[in-house]
Amino acid sequence: MLHYARPLARLVAELEKLPGIGPKSAQRMAFHFLRAPHADAERLAQAIMEVKEKIVFCRECFNFADQEVCDVCRSPKRDGTVICVVAEPRDLMAIERTAEFQGLYHVLQGVISPQEGIMPDMLKIKELLPRIQRHNTTEIIVATNPTVEGEATALYLVRLLKPLGIKVTRIAHGLPAGGDLDYADQATLISALQWRREM
Amino acid sequence: MLHYARPLARLVAELEKLPGIGPKSAQRMAFHFLRAPHADAERLAQAIMEVKEKIVFCRECFNFADQEVCDVCRSPKRDGTVICVVAEPRDLMAIERTAEFQGLYHVLQGVISPQEGIMPDMLKIKELLPRIQRHNTTEIIVATNPTVEGEATALYLVRLLKPLGIKVTRIAHGLPAGGDLDYADQATLISALQWRREM
Repeated sequence: MLHYARPLARLVAELEKLPGIGPKSAQRMAFHFLRAPHADAERLAQAIMEVKEKIVFCRECFNFADQEVCDVCRSPKRDGTVICVVAEPRDLMAIERTAEFQGLYHVLQGVISPQEGIMPDMLKIKELLPRIQRHNTTEIIVATNPTVEGEATALYLVRLLKPLGIKVTRIAHGLPAGGDLDYADQATLISALQWRREM
Repeated sequence: MLHYARPLARLVAELEKLPGIGPKSAQRMAFHFLRAPHADAERLAQAIMEVKEKIVFCRECFNFADQEVCDVCRSPKRDGTVICVVAEPRDLMAIERTAEFQGLYHVLQGVISPQEGIMPDMLKIKELLPRIQRHNTTEIIVATNPTVEGEATALYLVRLLKPLGIKVTRIAHGLPAGGDLDYADQATLISALQWRREM
């Protein structure tokens, strides 16, 4: 049985390490590089290296940034009296895509998970307190995922912040837009009932 | 609405150009690089560049190679009296994975497609003739895909090679292993009937 020519084999092996990329996709991508103009391949290779060299965590909110402080934290349009707490930069970006939120963010860089050995002091929680003081923050929106760990993290934040007189809110749990009662799982339906609101 | 930090945006844009990679996968892969050790990212970046620099087409069969002549053509174990003609290197690799075929290959680098303006003289067809002479080839197996273009290419090869006294065979069309008559499309079922064999 033939194997790939060595440089090709190496590339396929490296591509297979990427998340969600199996042998078939890795081969397809490797063949794409062989056909693609040299400049295209070079741009990707450089982009990979550049991201490793230039992307840091924002000193303020721990989002990804290419400067000491990220775009959101630097923007004069954003309102620090409301801070939205998320687990990961990707959650921040998901909320930014909605263009609905004008406050600041705080990225915990994970969620509390005793099973995985992730305790509160391993997350960027204590770093939130001086920010609340500086911005005279009145509301913290906890936008961790509606999972066991996400809820545990939300609860931890409530217990930490409420005694300081800060309003802590939680993003709503319920049926997704376009969802179908008939197809919803029980936990979602229970949430949708519990979170009901007067019309 | 926030955009990615610039180096991250560039990487996501480059990743989205890859086949089968949408915005979500591109973001996931980019975030993977941010978390991954520097050495991992560097290995992939280098593998991409190396593949562009070192992979050439085999002078004999037009498969991918890291030398002038590819592994298959160089192997003393392979039997040149049978040559299997495929459209692309990936087809060659698919057949090699079966470990069933001990002959040589010939990669056309495409199929005849008048709609896309691909004519026989744009494929590696004429390059097949001196190889047939040199190896005293007695059989050409045409392993192009069972598509309109694949069949047209097979037919073209039959008309070219049969007058030279060479046996030209076609890979079988029929139901895939584990397939279900009930789910098979009509064209496949018709092929399966037409290609039937006495047991």
